[in-house]
Amino acid sequence: MNYFSSNFKLGILGGGQLGKMLLAETRKFDIQTYVFDPSMEAPCQYGATKFFIGDLMDYDSVYDFGKKVDVLTIEIENVNLEALEQLEAEGLKVYPSPKTLRLIQNKGVQKDFYVENQIPTAAYKRFASLTDLRTEIEHNRVALPFVWKCAQFGYDGNGVKIVRSAEDIENLPNVECIAEQMVPFKNELAVIVARSVSGEVKAYPVVEMEFHPEANQVEYVICPARIDCHIAKKATEKALQVSQAYNHVGLLAVEMFQTHDEDILINEVAPRPHNSGHYSIEASYTSQFENHLRAILDLPLGNTWSKVAGIMVNLVGEEGFSGPVVYENIEKIMAIDGVIPHIYGKKETRPFRKMGHVTIVNENMTEARKIAEEVKNTIRVIAK
Amino acid sequence: MNYFSSNFKLGILGGGQLGKMLLAETRKFDIQTYVFDPSMEAPCQYGATKFFIGDLMDYDSVYDFGKKVDVLTIEIENVNLEALEQLEAEGLKVYPSPKTLRLIQNKGVQKDFYVENQIPTAAYKRFASLTDLRTEIEHNRVALPFVWKCAQFGYDGNGVKIVRSAEDIENLPNVECIAEQMVPFKNELAVIVARSVSGEVKAYPVVEMEFHPEANQVEYVICPARIDCHIAKKATEKALQVSQAYNHVGLLAVEMFQTHDEDILINEVAPRPHNSGHYSIEASYTSQFENHLRAILDLPLGNTWSKVAGIMVNLVGEEGFSGPVVYENIEKIMAIDGVIPHIYGKKETRPFRKMGHVTIVNENMTEARKIAEEVKNTIRVIAK
Repeated sequence: MNYFSSNFKLGILGGGQLGKMLLAETRKFDIQTYVFDPSMEAPCQYGATKFFIGDLMDYDSVYDFGKKVDVLTIEIENVNLEALEQLEAEGLKVYPSPKTLRLIQNKGVQKDFYVENQIPTAAYKRFASLTDLRTEIEHNRVALPFVWKCAQFGYDGNGVKIVRSAEDIENLPNVECIAEQMVPFKNELAVIVARSVSGEVKAYPVVEMEFHPEANQVEYVICPARIDCHIAKKATEKALQVSQAYNHVGLLAVEMFQTHDEDILINEVAPRPHNSGHYSIEASYTSQFENHLRAILDLPLGNTWSKVAGIMVNLVGEEGFSGPVVYENIEKIMAIDGVIPHIYGKKETRPFRKMGHVTIVNENMTEARKIAEEVKNTIRVIAK
Repeated sequence: MNYFSSNFKLGILGGGQLGKMLLAETRKFDIQTYVFDPSMEAPCQYGATKFFIGDLMDYDSVYDFGKKVDVLTIEIENVNLEALEQLEAEGLKVYPSPKTLRLIQNKGVQKDFYVENQIPTAAYKRFASLTDLRTEIEHNRVALPFVWKCAQFGYDGNGVKIVRSAEDIENLPNVECIAEQMVPFKNELAVIVARSVSGEVKAYPVVEMEFHPEANQVEYVICPARIDCHIAKKATEKALQVSQAYNHVGLLAVEMFQTHDEDILINEVAPRPHNSGHYSIEASYTSQFENHLRAILDLPLGNTWSKVAGIMVNLVGEEGFSGPVVYENIEKIMAIDGVIPHIYGKKETRPFRKMGHVTIVNENMTEARKIAEEVKNTIRVIAK
């Protein structure tokens, strides 16, 4: 099929920052895009061929949107799967497939999938509601501390909480959830795997993630991870195993724990471009967004290796600020060699909201890490 | 001034491929853009905040457009300068300034400027019309062969012709022109210089250009140029001298000849992003488009050095094909590591029309050069 400067239309469900960075690649290739998002203010409002407003969880809206395009992809998992299933049944190419999304959208189902496929993961129990979980705690059938995760609709650390005592669950929503064993770990790692319609597979290098202690959001993503070769090899193998088990099309971001025993446990996956791969825009031969596009259009995958070391710093709203956003000191960080800010285009900031990211590229990792800290300590996302 | 996710508006005169690649950077920074172009089908129709249709040479249209924006830039030199002068007089920031554009728009004026500023350039004579040139040839006052250049509105090799005999001028337009001495040269080189409002200056590495023998369009741009250190130093110094003489804001692309005597002669300049800098999107720490934006917004300039070797191949329409474009074998070149096509988004191809470019990046220049040739011999821009 001819995608370039043709009548072909790619549909994207979700119009956030991931969609926006994906759009940049579609513009580079002159591929027409229709984007569907609930917000008129979405980062994807510019750069798409057409932008549609609607509810991503509404069957009819998603179905009608799907009928307008030739290939349909997502930049967010929380979309109406029944509509995708119907569209697929009618012959539309939907990547990732609704089958893959169904195995991932619900974290309980995701964990069960790991167990069924001999993929190592932290021990867990599933609960239909918080009430059920509370009962189990009261009967001492769940060991404290544990990690509570709501089964659906969590994002960016929302929907995840460390529970150290029975009281910690009091303000949580009464929804389906899992209680996961807390795994002491040396590192949080991630590997992004690209898999095309034809089954071509390429893995990005292992990255290392550092989280903000309070917001539970990634603070630095470091590529390549500063780990031993054999751990990197093991992490990559595990990621490829997970990728093969899902048999997905497009990207699969695989988040992992490196335990103190040098085991690799799979934490969770996302079947789309991922925060842990943003560094690739500047550091890799092919960005994750371009490879997602190549994969779902069944074009050859691009080289996933890096030109230089890359570190990503998330730009999240400062605590205590809500309102029209200002990027304080952005010109100071732009004066440092190899520092590239990405501003997502959200007009309003609020505490811990993901507003953008900064990539630091350098031939030398030690230097890049120093600059990343300087960036982190200099720029502030505040309100007017 | 706050440019990021603010009400600030950057105006861009011209909506072609240069504007399109500039827009990608404005999206990355979430800077609002208004683009003005004569064609509804312009590559910039997507990705701008607002897109306006109008005549770039019409005083009122350009003036009215300028009144809507906070800073005005260009991606093409052929715009109404009187309107820009009036806008500047009324306080609008126009970069490059109409003064700079006036010194560059007319090639006769450009050559005079070099002479006045002791900038080495090939000998030339200016003529008000082809009729005048013909008279001089008849009186043997112009030595054959020479290079005819129309003084204004030439682009991509149009408006340039090698004249070997009196008959060669017969079909040329009867417009203001120059006759330039043909300089035998070893290499055609180019250096892009970025200069910010505050006067910060950074030069990109010297690149080497290879031209298509018939179409007079660049076929390969190679960065860094495979030349001796001392030639690279000399070329950079000359480019900086030219940049200083113009005292421009934004990019200045300086095209040069390296003669057999190792002299550097300035050929011509463009006060904007340039074909010879497209490789920078993938190969440089900061792309030329990002640095143009940084320069005109008076942000710190980004690092102009390269991460890896870069070669650019122009994608021009094949001879014998006109109509809806097809990029034959594009998937074949995309299967090669480090090969990234850029499709400008022109619906119709015609012989020698610039339709896109392909960047080849590699750690190793010899390897990159091999791949560039493979790319050149594989992809074809044809019509359906």
